[in-house]
Amino acid sequence: MILSALATSVGLNLALTVLLVAAYSLLRRRPPYVEVYAPRRPFAPLEPWLAAAWRRSEEDIHAAAGLDGVVFVRIFVFSIRVFAAAAVLGLGVLLPVNFFGDQLREIDFGDLPNKSIDLFSISNVQDGSNKLWLHFSAVYIITGITCYLLYHEYKYISGKRLDYFMTSKPLPQHFTVLVRAIPVSDGVSVGDAVDKFFREYHSSTYLSHTVVHQTGKLRRLLNDADNIWTKLTNLNARRSSGEPSRKFLGLFGRNDLLGMYQKRLEDLEENVRMEQSDATRRQEIPAAFVSFRSRYGAANAIYIRQSDNPTEWQTEHAPDPHDVYWPFFSTSFMERWIAKFVVFVASVLLILVFLLVVAFVQGLTYLEQLEQWLPFLRNILELAVVSQLVTGYLPSVILHFLSSYVPSIMKLFSTMQGFVSVSGIERSACNKMLRFTIWTVFFANVLTGSALRQFEIFFDPKEIPSKLAVLVPAQASFFIAYVVTSWTSITSELTQTAALFCNLLGKCATCCKRDGSKSPSMPYHSEIPRILLFGLLGLAYFIVAPLILPFVLVYYCLGYFIFRNQLFNVYVPKYDTGGKFWPIVHSTTIFSLVVLHIIAIGVFGLKKLPLAASLLLPLPVLTLLFNEFCRNRFW
Amino acid sequence: MILSALATSVGLNLALTVLLVAAYSLLRRRPPYVEVYAPRRPFAPLEPWLAAAWRRSEEDIHAAAGLDGVVFVRIFVFSIRVFAAAAVLGLGVLLPVNFFGDQLREIDFGDLPNKSIDLFSISNVQDGSNKLWLHFSAVYIITGITCYLLYHEYKYISGKRLDYFMTSKPLPQHFTVLVRAIPVSDGVSVGDAVDKFFREYHSSTYLSHTVVHQTGKLRRLLNDADNIWTKLTNLNARRSSGEPSRKFLGLFGRNDLLGMYQKRLEDLEENVRMEQSDATRRQEIPAAFVSFRSRYGAANAIYIRQSDNPTEWQTEHAPDPHDVYWPFFSTSFMERWIAKFVVFVASVLLILVFLLVVAFVQGLTYLEQLEQWLPFLRNILELAVVSQLVTGYLPSVILHFLSSYVPSIMKLFSTMQGFVSVSGIERSACNKMLRFTIWTVFFANVLTGSALRQFEIFFDPKEIPSKLAVLVPAQASFFIAYVVTSWTSITSELTQTAALFCNLLGKCATCCKRDGSKSPSMPYHSEIPRILLFGLLGLAYFIVAPLILPFVLVYYCLGYFIFRNQLFNVYVPKYDTGGKFWPIVHSTTIFSLVVLHIIAIGVFGLKKLPLAASLLLPLPVLTLLFNEFCRNRFW
Repeated sequence: MILSALATSVGLNLALTVLLVAAYSLLRRRPPYVEVYAPRRPFAPLEPWLAAAWRRSEEDIHAAAGLDGVVFVRIFVFSIRVFAAAAVLGLGVLLPVNFFGDQLREIDFGDLPNKSIDLFSISNVQDGSNKLWLHFSAVYIITGITCYLLYHEYKYISGKRLDYFMTSKPLPQHFTVLVRAIPVSDGVSVGDAVDKFFREYHSSTYLSHTVVHQTGKLRRLLNDADNIWTKLTNLNARRSSGEPSRKFLGLFGRNDLLGMYQKRLEDLEENVRMEQSDATRRQEIPAAFVSFRSRYGAANAIYIRQSDNPTEWQTEHAPDPHDVYWPFFSTSFMERWIAKFVVFVASVLLILVFLLVVAFVQGLTYLEQLEQWLPFLRNILELAVVSQLVTGYLPSVILHFLSSYVPSIMKLFSTMQGFVSVSGIERSACNKMLRFTIWTVFFANVLTGSALRQFEIFFDPKEIPSKLAVLVPAQASFFIAYVVTSWTSITSELTQTAALFCNLLGKCATCCKRDGSKSPSMPYHSEIPRILLFGLLGLAYFIVAPLILPFVLVYYCLGYFIFRNQLFNVYVPKYDTGGKFWPIVHSTTIFSLVVLHIIAIGVFGLKKLPLAASLLLPLPVLTLLFNEFCRNRFW
Repeated sequence: MILSALATSVGLNLALTVLLVAAYSLLRRRPPYVEVYAPRRPFAPLEPWLAAAWRRSEEDIHAAAGLDGVVFVRIFVFSIRVFAAAAVLGLGVLLPVNFFGDQLREIDFGDLPNKSIDLFSISNVQDGSNKLWLHFSAVYIITGITCYLLYHEYKYISGKRLDYFMTSKPLPQHFTVLVRAIPVSDGVSVGDAVDKFFREYHSSTYLSHTVVHQTGKLRRLLNDADNIWTKLTNLNARRSSGEPSRKFLGLFGRNDLLGMYQKRLEDLEENVRMEQSDATRRQEIPAAFVSFRSRYGAANAIYIRQSDNPTEWQTEHAPDPHDVYWPFFSTSFMERWIAKFVVFVASVLLILVFLLVVAFVQGLTYLEQLEQWLPFLRNILELAVVSQLVTGYLPSVILHFLSSYVPSIMKLFSTMQGFVSVSGIERSACNKMLRFTIWTVFFANVLTGSALRQFEIFFDPKEIPSKLAVLVPAQASFFIAYVVTSWTSITSELTQTAALFCNLLGKCATCCKRDGSKSPSMPYHSEIPRILLFGLLGLAYFIVAPLILPFVLVYYCLGYFIFRNQLFNVYVPKYDTGGKFWPIVHSTTIFSLVVLHIIAIGVFGLKKLPLAASLLLPLPVLTLLFNEFCRNRFW
């Protein structure tokens, strides 16, 4: 990519970003859009959103979005700090050194726009030059800064977490333990078995228990009732607004429909009542919520193994009542264990399938190939603007679009693993998404080639640094463009494009209209991996192409303001894990640092400075030791 | 190695074994040897030891050697079962198939003694032959049998372990928790801090505490007193036996010595009393034994995290009073953590140093090289008997001899890690020894070449199976000889050669005589890795050279009888971990199975049966899943 193409991309995205922000600022208070842009606070006084987002304190965020919201915002704070330092180092030291190196060619200042951005990368520094020691020091300095900030942040968040537990009101889940895999002998009900067990072993603290029942049928009936009720309300709403009656094929009028729905609702009510009253019709599941007299009693039951067979009487924290996910209470230890393995295999397969798609997208950056595939496009593609658009923009858009469907699949996978809380599912999905994102976006684009050939690099670990040192710089333009494009995508979070469309469509097709009173919840499991990816990109390209750093910094600054706004106005917390998402952020940053070290070792090897490469070897070891220390200190 | 050399080696070792057993049977009841051969039961009635060892029940062993002794014997029972099955498969199916293959040359039955033992190895089966499917099935069958036995054994031992806890009398350590890393603010003593903390958080179960003190000086004084007392006793014994008085350089007579010792003993007594009485002179260590009213209270304190900072108020099971190892109570969390890392590096370095030695030993199997190094030996080495001795016997002897010094070094390393119990130190040393033994004996001899070049194979994981498939069969003769030699070494356990020498020497130099009443304790940390090594050898060579299997089986049978005898007559249990050594045995067996699978995959690849190689791929995965399952089910 040449400098002018980059400038085009930056200009385009900046314009789009400003446009989206302007559109949001204008539209957010218009009546039809309020339920998209501020479903949480539709009647709040109007104030400039940017200033409001800036002004709000962390206590406000905690009150509005829970500790998870605070942790989410801290990801941005932490990243801004890291990349501010990185950008100062990168733009102040590394970029000039790279630019005034003369490995690639003599500099002609007259024709800057047509220079390749490779001039700003480490490739332009002469092999074996002593200037490379500046890069070497930069790696040590940025690792030190990042680790210091990681430690500081972890300490801060674990402090917050303690406060959270100290100050929270006594809640039912603090006194309750979920017991699964209860062994039941014939003729004894689950309830009796639980009662006997806890009366015997926890006599002083045991209070009561609730056995979980198979309620699939009841849930289906209630769902049906809910659907019919929505339809009825819509029909009534239309009638009161005086729409002409429409007859389906001239046969059924609205009144027939009304009557029919009412009849079915009455039937359902009857069934539900029968189902609810007749406890014997519901099957007991070998799982129960057991309540204790004190939090300490509950903690005892959780942390001390209850049975000589660890696969029975498994205890865990009871989830919040509104966080419970019911379908998987009946799974046995063995089933969950097998499901875990199957899901692992499935998520690896998903990555492989996705890589096939990425391989196609990657082809788009090579215009010649595209012209070969689609010859009729040749005339259009030869226009300068179009070619810059296609190489600089289209691949990223396609990637962004496709990636948006993966989180729900990953969530489905996590669901199948047998978690009993939505927060557990989303945390597990977050981990899966992280692996997916890092693999399909970073490694797939760096390694290129077919999916199976990509894995080959890991069969030859000795060669990883030198291979990455060749492959990573080659994709610098793609990733700079990717980061720049992401400005638009993070701003479209502000304008809620998808929800907006859905809302506008909903106005026409009333039957699928979303319930106005229900605000969406924050999809941490898809947002956190996406945000962390840019941290990985920024650190991986830190010494190779420091030009990427300011763009990453801008991304995080945008995200900081936008998400502070969204957490207040749009998303309602569905659960509060008490900041359990931070360890994911921590370990991902450690991973990014180690990737940086491996690339740096490879680069110094290629640049004929083997001493620097050897002196870098202790750095990943120290970083991993630091990680181990933090794990011991904080988890 | 040709068959006659193997026969020589087997004959020699069998003769030595029989000789040693005979010597033992004759000598064990002679008065001067009783304190070496039966220090535990010097006055027990005389009975044939082999029959007695066979007759004793597991309850007897439990009573005599604790649950650790039972676990130790179960290693032999388990191994005998595995290798009985393996030997049936190997000798009944694989060996004939190998022998009647004709890859290597036509068989000439007339000259069997001069045949290479390669004829019995898989190398002799023709490439791509369908007979290899027998080997393929054998791998699956032996894996199935081993896993079944592993499960069965683990279940049996965890049952025993439960019984052990159920039936044991209430002991002080069951009610006591060791608390380390107690944070102390200025002006508050450790005792007060502990008291305040446990009165606050464990008010209903807390009983009392004992703060640990720095007693280095006291311990030194007591040691001195002990030494002087021993010298005095010896002097008195000599005087009573009427030895003539010897004067040192004619200056000091015995009476001077006697008086001097008595004077010093009195001084010491004074010092000890002063040190004991004056508690202020002993520095408090931020560690304490905290006792609770119930075992349940103690369990609470151990399993529930006590502090918001996990590096403070660390609790663990208090060791048995006679199992405590005092010197490392004062180490902080950070020191232990660094020590762990340093010890890891040190034990890797030890392996590297040892490998240099092995490289030399390995050279001995190539006579030509030895002749080159030591030309004056040429004449001797050309004798047939000597050459067979040197190639078949000497390397193993040197290896056995050198290895005998390593356990104490590993124990020293483990000591430095800051364990507070001897059993903890020995279990950690056992793990270290295991890694050391597997690496220096198995891998070093298989991979050959310089130490650093050996590690290179792991940088190229894709090539591991095919490389091992070439290298492992090449060392078959060495390892068969190694197993055969080990018969003597395990029998010399019976004759206690080292202790015997020490005892005989002790009779002359009375001052270093060992205390007759003190029986040695079982060195589990050096014996278990040695025994498990033969399991690895047997499984690794299962399809490659099934000839090794009967020799391994004989080894385990010998060990079964010998150690059953020794646990009764010689070793006194120093501690009882309650069978905590079994997980080490379990995971090592899993490791051996995976090594077998990797070698088998490589062999089928080399033998041009790629389908079999691919069909073996699920086997290591399933084995590791089985291991994971057992970990969940039993630990």
